[in-house]
Amino acid sequence: MTAEPSDARPGFAELHRGPLPLLLPNAWDVSSALAFTEAGFPAVGTTSFGVNAAHGTPDAGGASRETTRDLVHALRVLPVHVTADVEDGFSDDAGEVAAYVAELGVAGVNLEDSQSGRLVDPGVVAGKIRAIKAAAPGVFVNARVDTYWFGIDATPERTLERAKVYVEAGADGVFVPGRTGAPDAGGLPPEALEKLAAGVPVPLNVLVTALLTLSELGELGVRRVSTGSLPYRAAIDAAVAVATTIRDGGVAPAATGYAQAQQRLEEYAARSR
Amino acid sequence: MTAEPSDARPGFAELHRGPLPLLLPNAWDVSSALAFTEAGFPAVGTTSFGVNAAHGTPDAGGASRETTRDLVHALRVLPVHVTADVEDGFSDDAGEVAAYVAELGVAGVNLEDSQSGRLVDPGVVAGKIRAIKAAAPGVFVNARVDTYWFGIDATPERTLERAKVYVEAGADGVFVPGRTGAPDAGGLPPEALEKLAAGVPVPLNVLVTALLTLSELGELGVRRVSTGSLPYRAAIDAAVAVATTIRDGGVAPAATGYAQAQQRLEEYAARSR
Repeated sequence: MTAEPSDARPGFAELHRGPLPLLLPNAWDVSSALAFTEAGFPAVGTTSFGVNAAHGTPDAGGASRETTRDLVHALRVLPVHVTADVEDGFSDDAGEVAAYVAELGVAGVNLEDSQSGRLVDPGVVAGKIRAIKAAAPGVFVNARVDTYWFGIDATPERTLERAKVYVEAGADGVFVPGRTGAPDAGGLPPEALEKLAAGVPVPLNVLVTALLTLSELGELGVRRVSTGSLPYRAAIDAAVAVATTIRDGGVAPAATGYAQAQQRLEEYAARSR
Repeated sequence: MTAEPSDARPGFAELHRGPLPLLLPNAWDVSSALAFTEAGFPAVGTTSFGVNAAHGTPDAGGASRETTRDLVHALRVLPVHVTADVEDGFSDDAGEVAAYVAELGVAGVNLEDSQSGRLVDPGVVAGKIRAIKAAAPGVFVNARVDTYWFGIDATPERTLERAKVYVEAGADGVFVPGRTGAPDAGGLPPEALEKLAAGVPVPLNVLVTALLTLSELGELGVRRVSTGSLPYRAAIDAAVAVATTIRDGGVAPAATGYAQAQQRLEEYAARSR
């Protein structure tokens, strides 16, 4: 069963044109996506780091192809737009990437332009984008430029050169992850953000940062802000803190109760039937 | 590859005889188990709630048979004892339950004596315990008595009657989950705990509680304290809090960094090869 499209629900692309940037929480499993949905987010992304970590595989190594597909298929019944982090598309063959994306049945994908820490020829990435848009025109393709992420060619100018190639190939958005707000190497200082936002004709996406609020990022021209793997890393930290607090003489902290969490799953299971 | 047994490492049963009760953190995926291991816990359990929730299935409905097996197999290379929450063994056939447990290759299992919120004939559970101990004598069988969990026959006397049957069948421990420390209906007040601990000749296991510390539980005679699904529920809460904090005008909170988390996965992947 697939969630019925609702005329009242804004399309995924439209969510990038609100008064504030679209904040996209990134889920790693069914339950985290259910919780984000219940918290009122209109769209949920996946995190390749989280999906990999849950299964014990390192991120960006191409191991999350099947696990990401299984996850987004499980999320089809949720009343939210789902966008999938598909690493580099899990193939060097543009046709294979497009077929994979079409099979996902998602509102959007993030496609990155690096492999094993190295930037890939932008022409290869553009070929994948063209193939995806041909096979699944309705999918919002968010092209990730990894210049700042890896600190290679980390300038607005070199980043915009790559972004231009992707937009010409049909990308609906450009994602520049980096330590946003940090003016050091690999960071994305506000001046760089402004130049990037002004230089791309599609919505600019960055990662959340401890230095700027959503509103401040919006004033710089950013249209989407992703949590990336932060919720998953915070989740693991919280789980460990529960156990170490008790080990070290404290008592069990409060959390959403078992009955409420089980109820959430029962409703999901009924909807999936 | 399987972790080499080390003479220096206490056996799983021996961990129940330390100065404080054994605190068992419950993992739901590879990464949470890696984090508990890194935090220094000598043994890690699984949580059927968390394993189910990660895959979108309600707890205690028999859906985590394969996902639990996959998880504990993935944890084989970790230098910790692993004990699996196998719900009711996923079968009414004692031989099938025993074959499943033997295939897990774990240090221990939790086996519960209820199905769909109803207590099962203790003789049926005893049959499963006998079959497991015959097929895999080294597996620490922790027999769960669900009287307090469901508020049915929730008295020390009725609970001990069931526990006695399981111990006679070979159970190595008895687990009585409930709202420990809570004197209300369904709760396990300290007086009840003391009676239960005195009445079972094997280690008594309870859930963590907000009302008593590990040391206080130990003084009442408890030998193992499980976190159950609490770390998973706290994890999901923490993930949602990251996203809602930013949505509501705050900035991204701190967490274990991406590079450190990725490093943890790379070491695990190298060990699993």
